[in-house]
Amino acid sequence: MRIELLKREMQKSNVDGYLISNINNVFYFTGFMDISDATLSLIIPLDGEPTLLVPPLSYTAAKDNALNCLVNVISTKDKIIDKIVQKIKLNNLKNIEFDTLSTSMYMGLIKKFKDVKITLNQKRIWNLRRVKDSQEISFLRKASELADIGIEAGIQAIKAGVKEYEIAAEAEYAMRLHGSEGIAFDTIIASGPRSAYPHGVCTNRVINKGEFVILDLGAVSSGYRSDITRTVVVGTPTRKQKKMLEIVSRAHKKALECIHENINAYEVDANARDVLKSEGYGKEFLHGLGHGVGLDIHEPPTLSSSSEDILKAGNIVTVEPGMYIVGFGGVRIEDLVLVHENYGERLTQAAYYL
Amino acid sequence: MRIELLKREMQKSNVDGYLISNINNVFYFTGFMDISDATLSLIIPLDGEPTLLVPPLSYTAAKDNALNCLVNVISTKDKIIDKIVQKIKLNNLKNIEFDTLSTSMYMGLIKKFKDVKITLNQKRIWNLRRVKDSQEISFLRKASELADIGIEAGIQAIKAGVKEYEIAAEAEYAMRLHGSEGIAFDTIIASGPRSAYPHGVCTNRVINKGEFVILDLGAVSSGYRSDITRTVVVGTPTRKQKKMLEIVSRAHKKALECIHENINAYEVDANARDVLKSEGYGKEFLHGLGHGVGLDIHEPPTLSSSSEDILKAGNIVTVEPGMYIVGFGGVRIEDLVLVHENYGERLTQAAYYL
Repeated sequence: MRIELLKREMQKSNVDGYLISNINNVFYFTGFMDISDATLSLIIPLDGEPTLLVPPLSYTAAKDNALNCLVNVISTKDKIIDKIVQKIKLNNLKNIEFDTLSTSMYMGLIKKFKDVKITLNQKRIWNLRRVKDSQEISFLRKASELADIGIEAGIQAIKAGVKEYEIAAEAEYAMRLHGSEGIAFDTIIASGPRSAYPHGVCTNRVINKGEFVILDLGAVSSGYRSDITRTVVVGTPTRKQKKMLEIVSRAHKKALECIHENINAYEVDANARDVLKSEGYGKEFLHGLGHGVGLDIHEPPTLSSSSEDILKAGNIVTVEPGMYIVGFGGVRIEDLVLVHENYGERLTQAAYYL
Repeated sequence: MRIELLKREMQKSNVDGYLISNINNVFYFTGFMDISDATLSLIIPLDGEPTLLVPPLSYTAAKDNALNCLVNVISTKDKIIDKIVQKIKLNNLKNIEFDTLSTSMYMGLIKKFKDVKITLNQKRIWNLRRVKDSQEISFLRKASELADIGIEAGIQAIKAGVKEYEIAAEAEYAMRLHGSEGIAFDTIIASGPRSAYPHGVCTNRVINKGEFVILDLGAVSSGYRSDITRTVVVGTPTRKQKKMLEIVSRAHKKALECIHENINAYEVDANARDVLKSEGYGKEFLHGLGHGVGLDIHEPPTLSSSSEDILKAGNIVTVEPGMYIVGFGGVRIEDLVLVHENYGERLTQAAYYL
């Protein structure tokens, strides 16, 4: 079905072949997930059956699990190019698009053809993937529930004297025990001045009383990821900390409340950003408001001031305003949100601990 | 120092600039580690100071942590290309190499220049990274100790009725609590017929009495990864299972014992493969014997029958023979091994449970 949708779009643009190497795209179309650095290739001719080329290591798993395609085993990277060339010739393809290729694969391919157009077009697949179907939404709901479990376990474990990675251990363990397929991205536990790093991962830093701790983490369910952030203070917050939490929380709420189908993504960003600006913290909000989430942790649509995206029902996006004061600390509050016709539904639902 | 070594090699080949986008390469030269999908660029002119271009999100962390370079903040991907172009012109570079570029970045760059040679050359950096220095070796030792802890915790948790991901949960939790910076790769817990998938990750499958369980996992310490595999039987092994374990174990030992500086990598592979072949299981050993490990989980040198690599002291490689019988199950035994002048030293040291 997804392959049919892709072919329909290819046909409209006179594209007669699509070449997929991204493992999440392969999974999207075939249901087969390989390891993250596998060299795969799914060749989809407009007319005819798709062929999935896999290394010997992946062959049994691919044969057992890949749907909607033939599975061929290919022993080396060079031979993958040869096999693709062979398929292109066999199907007499003249106008091919691809999602991603290493520079060496790309150069290897274009050298072989003079009369075949080979064009990067990731948008064609993102246009399908950015709108989630009901099955994908149920996986994303499950991943969000698991992220809630992770956040609660992490927050329970926070106290003065504990190391950042020990918090990560508790959060990840809780998610795993409840069935998460690993973590959606490197867990961020950023405490004290490190909370001013938006992408602070986690270290062996000991958490002290009175500090901010940002927990930003996600789970994986059936390949689909989730993303949630909470910020807590160890002990009683100061007035400044309270104010920061309150402002970011208000920005988060404002953005959430404006979400509906057909709103411009930049408007959602502006709704949050205006709150921070009006309090004099516009510059401390270092990043865009959010991003799509699915099989990848960062997908279209993008919620930022320069985004040209328009939200559609079925988009699943983060809403994550933040405020980062170098040397002092930071606050970020994030939920995963499903766009409906008239509203945005929070998929992550852990308490805000404000 | 590493940058000086790179420059020395560049000079020998009349290369006057090197462009780095891989985050592990950036870490190797600057000590700054960004998130895995960050768009970074480290420009190293032969004459002059390197410049690291980072997105706004990463700026504070990069400024605080990146050594041996200037740090510039760049707001968008397009501007990264513009900034690189500017640096190339400013430094009057004519012969540039790069480690990796997305197809769009590559095409964007070559369009801008007619008189500048821009060449993919990953080998130049791998030639440095494949030989580990004493600091790197100490991190890899630590990561290996953590992997041992993970394996032991996982094996302790195995019993009939438990799910694969519950074993992963225990193993990963133990590694995290002891300081692992996450997992080196998606943990494999492959039980029963699934153990015949060399890259089987883990599922919610319930483990039964009498089945093989392959545990293949790794930890991370200071950015460096480890990799270990053990195979156990739940309860008492059958004669066939015992025989499979014994053969793979013998192949593993044979390969380990032959390792020393200057041996051809294909010979190490052959030492293990010959054991399996002589028992009639050559075809069931689906993959190469091993691979280098460091900041990446799969690095040069490669231990396989077609490898042209020669082992050098300071290489750190896996030795992981396996035997996979579709429908029945598989066995794999793997250690991480440091190559010395006269022998191979096992860095992972968990019991074999044979």
